[in-house]
Amino acid sequence: MVAATQSLEELCINSIRFLAVDAIEKSKSGHPGLPMGAAPMGFVLWDKFMRFNPKNPKWFNRDRFILSAGHGCMLQYALLYLTGYDSVSIEDIKQFRQWGSKTPGHPENFETEGVEVTTGPLGQGIANGVGLALAEAHLAATFNKPDATIVDHYTYVILGDGCNMEGVASEACSIAGHWGLGKLIALYDDNHISIDGSTDVAFTEDVSKRFESYGWHVLHVESGNTDLTAIAKAIEEAKAVTDKPSMIKVTTTIGYGSPNKQNTAGIHGSALGPEETALTRKALNWEYEPFVVPQDVLTYMNKAIERGAAYEAEWNKAFTAYKAKYPSEAAQFERYLSNKLPDGWDKVLPTFTPEDKPLPTRKHSENCLNKLAPVLPELIGGSADLTHSNLTELKGFGDFQKGHYANRNVHFGVREHAMGAICNAMALHGSGLISYGATFLIFTDYMRAAIRLSALSQAGSIWVMTHDSIGQGEDGPTHQPIETLASLRAIPNLTVFRPADGNECSGAYKIAIEKSKKHEPSLLAFTRQNVPNLPGTSMEGVAKGAYTIVECQGTPDIILMGTGSEVSLCVTAAEKLTAEGKKVRVVSMPSWELFDAQDAAYKESVLPKAVTKRLSVEAAASFGWHKYVGPEGDTVSIDTFGASAPGGTCMDKFGFTVENVLAKAKAVLG
Amino acid sequence: MVAATQSLEELCINSIRFLAVDAIEKSKSGHPGLPMGAAPMGFVLWDKFMRFNPKNPKWFNRDRFILSAGHGCMLQYALLYLTGYDSVSIEDIKQFRQWGSKTPGHPENFETEGVEVTTGPLGQGIANGVGLALAEAHLAATFNKPDATIVDHYTYVILGDGCNMEGVASEACSIAGHWGLGKLIALYDDNHISIDGSTDVAFTEDVSKRFESYGWHVLHVESGNTDLTAIAKAIEEAKAVTDKPSMIKVTTTIGYGSPNKQNTAGIHGSALGPEETALTRKALNWEYEPFVVPQDVLTYMNKAIERGAAYEAEWNKAFTAYKAKYPSEAAQFERYLSNKLPDGWDKVLPTFTPEDKPLPTRKHSENCLNKLAPVLPELIGGSADLTHSNLTELKGFGDFQKGHYANRNVHFGVREHAMGAICNAMALHGSGLISYGATFLIFTDYMRAAIRLSALSQAGSIWVMTHDSIGQGEDGPTHQPIETLASLRAIPNLTVFRPADGNECSGAYKIAIEKSKKHEPSLLAFTRQNVPNLPGTSMEGVAKGAYTIVECQGTPDIILMGTGSEVSLCVTAAEKLTAEGKKVRVVSMPSWELFDAQDAAYKESVLPKAVTKRLSVEAAASFGWHKYVGPEGDTVSIDTFGASAPGGTCMDKFGFTVENVLAKAKAVLG
Repeated sequence: MVAATQSLEELCINSIRFLAVDAIEKSKSGHPGLPMGAAPMGFVLWDKFMRFNPKNPKWFNRDRFILSAGHGCMLQYALLYLTGYDSVSIEDIKQFRQWGSKTPGHPENFETEGVEVTTGPLGQGIANGVGLALAEAHLAATFNKPDATIVDHYTYVILGDGCNMEGVASEACSIAGHWGLGKLIALYDDNHISIDGSTDVAFTEDVSKRFESYGWHVLHVESGNTDLTAIAKAIEEAKAVTDKPSMIKVTTTIGYGSPNKQNTAGIHGSALGPEETALTRKALNWEYEPFVVPQDVLTYMNKAIERGAAYEAEWNKAFTAYKAKYPSEAAQFERYLSNKLPDGWDKVLPTFTPEDKPLPTRKHSENCLNKLAPVLPELIGGSADLTHSNLTELKGFGDFQKGHYANRNVHFGVREHAMGAICNAMALHGSGLISYGATFLIFTDYMRAAIRLSALSQAGSIWVMTHDSIGQGEDGPTHQPIETLASLRAIPNLTVFRPADGNECSGAYKIAIEKSKKHEPSLLAFTRQNVPNLPGTSMEGVAKGAYTIVECQGTPDIILMGTGSEVSLCVTAAEKLTAEGKKVRVVSMPSWELFDAQDAAYKESVLPKAVTKRLSVEAAASFGWHKYVGPEGDTVSIDTFGASAPGGTCMDKFGFTVENVLAKAKAVLG
Repeated sequence: MVAATQSLEELCINSIRFLAVDAIEKSKSGHPGLPMGAAPMGFVLWDKFMRFNPKNPKWFNRDRFILSAGHGCMLQYALLYLTGYDSVSIEDIKQFRQWGSKTPGHPENFETEGVEVTTGPLGQGIANGVGLALAEAHLAATFNKPDATIVDHYTYVILGDGCNMEGVASEACSIAGHWGLGKLIALYDDNHISIDGSTDVAFTEDVSKRFESYGWHVLHVESGNTDLTAIAKAIEEAKAVTDKPSMIKVTTTIGYGSPNKQNTAGIHGSALGPEETALTRKALNWEYEPFVVPQDVLTYMNKAIERGAAYEAEWNKAFTAYKAKYPSEAAQFERYLSNKLPDGWDKVLPTFTPEDKPLPTRKHSENCLNKLAPVLPELIGGSADLTHSNLTELKGFGDFQKGHYANRNVHFGVREHAMGAICNAMALHGSGLISYGATFLIFTDYMRAAIRLSALSQAGSIWVMTHDSIGQGEDGPTHQPIETLASLRAIPNLTVFRPADGNECSGAYKIAIEKSKKHEPSLLAFTRQNVPNLPGTSMEGVAKGAYTIVECQGTPDIILMGTGSEVSLCVTAAEKLTAEGKKVRVVSMPSWELFDAQDAAYKESVLPKAVTKRLSVEAAASFGWHKYVGPEGDTVSIDTFGASAPGGTCMDKFGFTVENVLAKAKAVLG
């Protein structure tokens, strides 16, 4: 037996290290430094604490693990492999970072079973951890009974210096402390190295003190490279403190074991190279060939399979008892987990006729949310400190606060980015929650990385964005979106809605909720100001993305198309043009993505190729509209920043008037 | 005399309060709460400490003031008016938040002289404050002499709870503590109210302790509503600590003086209404009509004019002496302030021929930066912890660190958003600095709010973004930009460049530097991977945005157009199509914005209307390209997220190959 001098634990830890070293060496790409330094904490956590079932990675009551420092993903892949997940085989590890592999360059929940969320963009993971812990707290408060516990798991996060420098992490950890999420335990890999070199270069704050200022329980493991007992003791202590999240600073050496590269930035993001790999093998007394794991290690670590089956069986038993005692709650819980919507849920969404009074679409949104809230108890979310501007309160469902975790109105504070990551994690908790986050449309800029991740990582978050144009008014150009819609429409897998009136708001919510259950995010843009209810609009129309709401006899001379608050301008302008003898079609386009997804025949029926005279009207940048208006068309749009003035004045001054639409339409008609 | 019971100081403070109350009452829009609560600290700061010249708002050595809580802008407008700035008259205050006024809904440096930066999006202002303080420290270290000080000013910031919740503020304050920027003094308006109500709802961290953890000097004024002596004493103490930035927590009452609305969220963002305004007048013993300021107040506050003239005269004298002793430094300093580029600066930019070896454009970028660094000493910037990936080090010019402020390589840490705001502030310091900030292109998502503000607020920052496509490779979809270019091109006033080779990199830098001096930001997108130097590319071509690099005889059958790393695919495909007898033009389009700004004749010469067979090739989303390819054209693009694999594999798999370009071109040709 080789390496007889090593304890079984050391063998396990070195197995993790060398799976990382060798996979990265083979792919000639990756980040060995973190796995080598964090292997001890990863091993202790997964071996002694984490409750999960490798053969059923989606088992509901598993502890969640997030590697926020996602570049160190070989740590996670090694742990998944060693503990017996089917998702990561040794062959997968040999395919690290290759086309089509299960072991991509950063952890991707949609590629690899056992990965909870997608990390890599720094800080997102710890913020996701807050969201997973929130979800657990909420579900526990909602479903657990004094005599029956069915929701009860920890959320563990390993994060690094990079995560701790990111603002999104600061935001999320501040609100986690406020909420007192005691089952969130973060292990901070304190290795003093970031890409530019020693953290002395740019990161000399007292991280522990900062977390204390947030209200966290803070611990320190001084010898994180070797002191497994101290790591275990710290996690025990963290678990014992139930009213505060815990942060364990674990001081380690990046690239531990590499004689010449450890404790340098050189080992952060590059393969060691053959020579240094050999030297590291020697230094760590590791005589196994690449990708060979000692059988003792496999046997030992694979015990996770047995443990996991037992955990799940135990939970199943508990759930069976729960079901017997609390059948209606159990049925609801099972529906949550099935990710199915209750029958007839969408019947609550209101419809409107042109006789109904004009309202801001944000008010329609409020109505929809409040109609949905009673029938969809899994709907949970809130605003980044703009609740009464975004109109996102679920009335009567209370504020989610420490000690009131069953409540469903989440106050994120002025923390848009953390809100995004927290909503994503709620969606990815796998328990059927429908999460929503709200702010002014312009401030999607503050949370764009999280919105993108909702689309990439198949988190069905719903983004409720109000004050969606220069109609916002007096707050001025810092608060008025111009390019914002275009920038969001460009994101793959995100469906953007800009409804024109009450019917279209209902239609947008219907699809957004359905998409959420299909793990697809939506972004809804609503007006601050009143809009009339229009003839011809419908929930069904919204589902097509674009549809004719005013039709003419025969082939149209011109098509006016618009979204949101500008559709009514198109309708009025069409009336006037019709009175002048023109044949005019009006197309409402609440969602480009949904329209683009229709078949060619439908698209031709709405925007016939033969009709080349087209005018779009949207109080936003023209960017992207040329696809629909074509070279003979034009846009009524705004390609400069806005201005501070009453909303109506802004609309007038920037040309969003019936007169200007008419003038431009006539110019297009020639 | 009315209000005889009030001291002159109280009269001044109440004048500020009622200018705010009455302006907001008149416009029926705005945020009275902050000005009413922060008037005492605003008054003390501007009256007893701030050195500025109202009749020359741009006087170089002025103390800088930032209202990071920009919604409270009436505080700033009142102070500008009372201290005698010409930019804000009483008539301007009556026009608060109206079309074309000098008093927009949030402070805009480009509208109102005396406003240093544009605030409103929370957290940006305090981060800008770090940038202004950095600029001061850098210029002081660069130009001051043991016997002659010409750069010596403070940066004061008033920020609120909202700013302190934002991640960008956390990032910026952490790095400010690291740098030890002692002349940055932040007054935190600790009023316990945010829009959703008491800060108890979402913000219960210990802010002072957090700032201590960053290495700041922290003070507390307990009675910020009334204790002017304590405010003054705290600012004195803050000034006395020169090796740390200072944060003074000033506990106040939002809406101080309003009997029924003070200390509630109701006074944050709404006019008081006539009744409550009358009650507030009574409560504060204010018997003046709206917009009437007691003459004693005007006389007293207007003394700032005299003081300001004296400060400037004193400085002019000092500068004259400096100039006599240090003529070459003085000439350089004057050039900085004139915002002029040195003669012939651009001659250092290299040009290339197809015989020159292929390089990644990020490497060309590094070469350009290092050619420019010696001739443009005002060039200062760095990366968010990716210095050696972005290749942005100015070699030989040292790291900007505490005690080494003359150095020019700034290590921002993994803090993209703060980097953005800090770069903007360096550009807006008004001292000719050319600031640049770098990260991976995908992480513009983390700093988008700051990039937008560079464009809105006329900060000539240069954004150096590398790893600009799926060619990034193994890091995978979290790190591969798809929609990113489109989302940036959509921002008004921002010029985006994606150069194809060495000549185009030089051309992009030439324009970006020139634009910086004209207060216009640029964003440059560079490859990770090698690209060949192409025939026909030129710096002059870049200036036109798009230009023909491969021409055919007569009218082209098809135009192939591309950007960056894909232009070479177009060139090779064109060769093959030409060999097959087709007439093919290749257009390189390094900058859409510059091309759109050309006259119609030039545009027609490059993309003639008659040539409708067009194909774009860009390893990014198709979003926006239809404007150029038209309905008969097509795109070689990627409208899904990327994948983790070697960069070349990604390019191949997603169709960025000569074969696919040929196939698509033939399909377009029909």
